[in-house]
Amino acid sequence: MKITLKEIAQILDGEIDGDENCIISGLAGIDRAGPGEITFVANPKYARYITTTQASAIVCAADTVAPGKNLIKVSNPYLAYAKALRFLNPAPKESGTIDPGAVIADDVKIGDNVTVYPFVYIGKGCCLGDNVTIYPHCFIGKNASIGDDTVVEPNVTIGERCTIGRRVIIHAGTVIGSDGFGFARDGAVYYKIPQLGIVQIDDDVEIGANNTIDRAALERTWIKRGTKTDNLVHIAHNVIIGEDSCVVAQTGIAGSTKLGDRVIMAGQSATVGHITIGNDVIVGARSGVSADIPDGQVVSGAPHMPHMQWLRMTGTLKKLPDMRRTLVRLTQKVEALEAELHKNQEKESP
Amino acid sequence: MKITLKEIAQILDGEIDGDENCIISGLAGIDRAGPGEITFVANPKYARYITTTQASAIVCAADTVAPGKNLIKVSNPYLAYAKALRFLNPAPKESGTIDPGAVIADDVKIGDNVTVYPFVYIGKGCCLGDNVTIYPHCFIGKNASIGDDTVVEPNVTIGERCTIGRRVIIHAGTVIGSDGFGFARDGAVYYKIPQLGIVQIDDDVEIGANNTIDRAALERTWIKRGTKTDNLVHIAHNVIIGEDSCVVAQTGIAGSTKLGDRVIMAGQSATVGHITIGNDVIVGARSGVSADIPDGQVVSGAPHMPHMQWLRMTGTLKKLPDMRRTLVRLTQKVEALEAELHKNQEKESP
Amino acid sequence: MKITLKEIAQILDGEIDGDENCIISGLAGIDRAGPGEITFVANPKYARYITTTQASAIVCAADTVAPGKNLIKVSNPYLAYAKALRFLNPAPKESGTIDPGAVIADDVKIGDNVTVYPFVYIGKGCCLGDNVTIYPHCFIGKNASIGDDTVVEPNVTIGERCTIGRRVIIHAGTVIGSDGFGFARDGAVYYKIPQLGIVQIDDDVEIGANNTIDRAALERTWIKRGTKTDNLVHIAHNVIIGEDSCVVAQTGIAGSTKLGDRVIMAGQSATVGHITIGNDVIVGARSGVSADIPDGQVVSGAPHMPHMQWLRMTGTLKKLPDMRRTLVRLTQKVEALEAELHKNQEKESP
Repeated sequence: MKITLKEIAQILDGEIDGDENCIISGLAGIDRAGPGEITFVANPKYARYITTTQASAIVCAADTVAPGKNLIKVSNPYLAYAKALRFLNPAPKESGTIDPGAVIADDVKIGDNVTVYPFVYIGKGCCLGDNVTIYPHCFIGKNASIGDDTVVEPNVTIGERCTIGRRVIIHAGTVIGSDGFGFARDGAVYYKIPQLGIVQIDDDVEIGANNTIDRAALERTWIKRGTKTDNLVHIAHNVIIGEDSCVVAQTGIAGSTKLGDRVIMAGQSATVGHITIGNDVIVGARSGVSADIPDGQVVSGAPHMPHMQWLRMTGTLKKLPDMRRTLVRLTQKVEALEAELHKNQEKESP
Repeated sequence: MKITLKEIAQILDGEIDGDENCIISGLAGIDRAGPGEITFVANPKYARYITTTQASAIVCAADTVAPGKNLIKVSNPYLAYAKALRFLNPAPKESGTIDPGAVIADDVKIGDNVTVYPFVYIGKGCCLGDNVTIYPHCFIGKNASIGDDTVVEPNVTIGERCTIGRRVIIHAGTVIGSDGFGFARDGAVYYKIPQLGIVQIDDDVEIGANNTIDRAALERTWIKRGTKTDNLVHIAHNVIIGEDSCVVAQTGIAGSTKLGDRVIMAGQSATVGHITIGNDVIVGARSGVSADIPDGQVVSGAPHMPHMQWLRMTGTLKKLPDMRRTLVRLTQKVEALEAELHKNQEKESP
Repeated sequence: MKITLKEIAQILDGEIDGDENCIISGLAGIDRAGPGEITFVANPKYARYITTTQASAIVCAADTVAPGKNLIKVSNPYLAYAKALRFLNPAPKESGTIDPGAVIADDVKIGDNVTVYPFVYIGKGCCLGDNVTIYPHCFIGKNASIGDDTVVEPNVTIGERCTIGRRVIIHAGTVIGSDGFGFARDGAVYYKIPQLGIVQIDDDVEIGANNTIDRAALERTWIKRGTKTDNLVHIAHNVIIGEDSCVVAQTGIAGSTKLGDRVIMAGQSATVGHITIGNDVIVGARSGVSADIPDGQVVSGAPHMPHMQWLRMTGTLKKLPDMRRTLVRLTQKVEALEAELHKNQEKESP
């Protein structure tokens, strides 16, 4: 694809400083880009490359100064980078056909331009919206529904009655709608509590690879619009995750916990069950959240504490053995002082 | 389904206090149940809803008093809830047929009323008991066996020679019988140690979604009767887990470790390899067990310690920076005291 | 299989002390081996069994003394054990045929003696080397390549354009080439950054079950020769892992991090993104690496610290509540001393 700098600037809603007729055919990192390529400075620590890059043009922040360079100035260079990348590398077009090697129940409703690969199984009563793509080896249980423009990667399992919104991406190997982990004790033996609810995934969600999202006991496990999960994430039954949240790899959210909007759970973090985490909360990597968190807090540690407190705490942890030695020495000194003072007093009061 | 309170009471082995002819058609939570529905109070913190619920009947503890309400009094309301839920929502009946779109070796022994979905692969010499259900995209390696009434959800891999008991449920995406992680160093290079053993899973076990259970090096990795694992659990080669144990999500059990009966490993916990954890041990969430644990202990932390000690420790952790400051100040004060006392003594002994 | 001790000694490059014509037909652990079986002492704690074992022969270290026993003395008994195990239990031979129940694009290049099971999907432009085996329900995206002698276990997903080397083993349920977790914020909403790179896996790598290895944003996520990953490992986009490294179960490596050669990441450990871990580094179980680590270091803890420091720190952790009490008591004593001294001074200076 060949495109002028002027056209790119229009797509990125940016302002040109330089030659608007410059031809661009690709995109690369600032330390690797060559003639004909456009590059980006989103992170200030790469700004030093602006004068030396071989790129034909640079997308950068509005206050950038670089005489002799072709610049597109934008308010959010990282977002502009993502948009240019998508524009220069459009997603491949799928066939829009149903492969005869798929097994699809007679009554499944299928929208326009749906692509179903071989070895897909779709149960009775399912409903697929327009432009849906289902890759090989996916299982879609009966009465499930999948919204327009959603992509389901290979080897995904979507349990019966679960509902998936529009423009959702579900990466390979993920399981949606497995039974929640619920048992009643009958003496020493566990009696399984039927898990009768569903998983509801709203529009614009992206679910990573090999996630497990359990169906609710009675109602729904619910992931709201725009939320993204990374790989190997576990979401237990009855959990609700708000909009535009972000759950990083290997995190686990225990049963019936509610996350607000724009929450970030960093990698390998976790929550106990039955708690509420407010909007805009950030949970640090490997943290274990053990109680409700109000809106806007940043926490770390297991059990969690305010992030600044955690930083101070972990900064002190290494000194713990030294502290213990100091404490022993100090105890001896204080005892010696007490003895000496007592001795002096005896001398003074004969 | 419509059923009288009397019939439900018989199923639950409970005692009616109220109208035994009351008709029940469903079940719901106590804060949502309406006329015609039965509800439950298993957790005392919901007892306050007993007087206000719109439910037609309530399953509750034997000592409950609620004049004017239809009650079924039972010894274990949570268990009664699970049983009523199952009764009112019987598991769907499978077809009891072998789909011609499955690939099954000629010599596979198949019991009565077995359901095999399309895209299932079953290797030579396998044996399926009565009423077994195998969902699409499962792989069952040669000479494996699966007991009566067992359900294998979609996309499960069961390696060759592994044995699965009766009434077992294996959730989607789980791998049973992958190679144990065993290598011998040959200089800087790893030489693979062949993993020749099997996985044996006994009756009434339930395995969550996307688990990985490795085959033993020589003999068997063994999960005994009634044990339940949650999602994304890792069980390494040669591990033995006793009866009626419970392994919560994202837990990892390292090679050759033995867990007793009725052990609970809470979420994201782990053990090192080659240790023994006794009966009735509870390991707290995110704990790392680093040595043997005798029967009946409750432990937390990584490395683990008695749970009460861990609670006290974590309660103090946040105060660590304050403690350090106090320690510095105290050291200065003690030095000042020592200097002063020394000065006094010099004055006194001229 | 029946073989003389002499033949085994040749395979293991060992020296016989005893009857070289002794016939061996199997291998077992030293506490279980019987007549006709060979056993091994790799771990000195089992050396005491040498005099009592019923085995017909023992592979052991060069300095072993056991009069009346048939010994094969080798420099590395554990490696010899692995090699004998492989020799006595050769890997089963695959059919070397392409099952007609697989779906393979017309232009796929297929080497000699390739085995493809039913329900495998292989996209356009792929290339399979000689002696490759692909088990059921694997998906291989377009333009991917798989080197000679590689085995892909069931239910594996290999995304488009990814390259897999020779003699690689990929265990069941693993996903290679899922999208990296990259989003740009557009106000409160996440905008997906296209993930256009690949995963490259070099020769002699073994990947465990249910791993997730994301494709790079632009270039490659790269796992070099001889590295082994255990189950449920997460490797994010742009990560590079050196040769002969070892990543134990449930470990997560965040985006753009580089691991050197012969690194060991123990179970449930993790790294932050964009750091460099040197050659021969060992990261302890459940550790969280938060910054670069130079060659040869052994670290533990989260955040990580030198392993010896971590041992001292965790040894002191349990004493934290005691230390706090001591500190409170000491503070009181010092204040009392200060008051007393002050009082004495007042008395002395009237």
